[in-house]
Amino acid sequence: MALFMDIHNDVEGLTHEAVADAHQKDLDVQGKYGVNYLNYWYNEDSGKVFCLANAPSREALEAVHREAHGLVADEIVEVNEGE
Amino acid sequence: MALFMDIHNDVEGLTHEAVADAHQKDLDVQGKYGVNYLNYWYNEDSGKVFCLANAPSREALEAVHREAHGLVADEIVEVNEGE
Repeated sequence: MALFMDIHNDVEGLTHEAVADAHQKDLDVQGKYGVNYLNYWYNEDSGKVFCLANAPSREALEAVHREAHGLVADEIVEVNEGE
Repeated sequence: MALFMDIHNDVEGLTHEAVADAHQKDLDVQGKYGVNYLNYWYNEDSGKVFCLANAPSREALEAVHREAHGLVADEIVEVNEGE
């Protein structure tokens, strides 16, 4: 397992409700791919979203977004967390 | 106060120790600007760093990085946190 931050640069029509709904769909699907979404941050005006998740691979992470709502990330960065 | 994610796209010579040291310098300086750094994530290979912080403004956030170590972010995004 590794930790990843994925970035969506411009999600159209992003609202608090829409992103919460999409995140819930991720949670519903993630178990199938061994992924664990930990948190997310977003800006309604710009449509930018950051998702932090543990995943076995970046492909698994992408598969969850694709199956859950189709909004795949523009960038996926494997990260270490500060201590 | 607002929550911000700042992004450094390519910090040269980024190592676990260097980023921890820079973060500690942020913590030492942040009180002066009313900023509270909450966490950070980084990738040693690409030099990418994400910092999450509460701050009164993006200018205050930038001022901390500038004074602490001079590595100002490439992008600062005001964010809401998922629930």
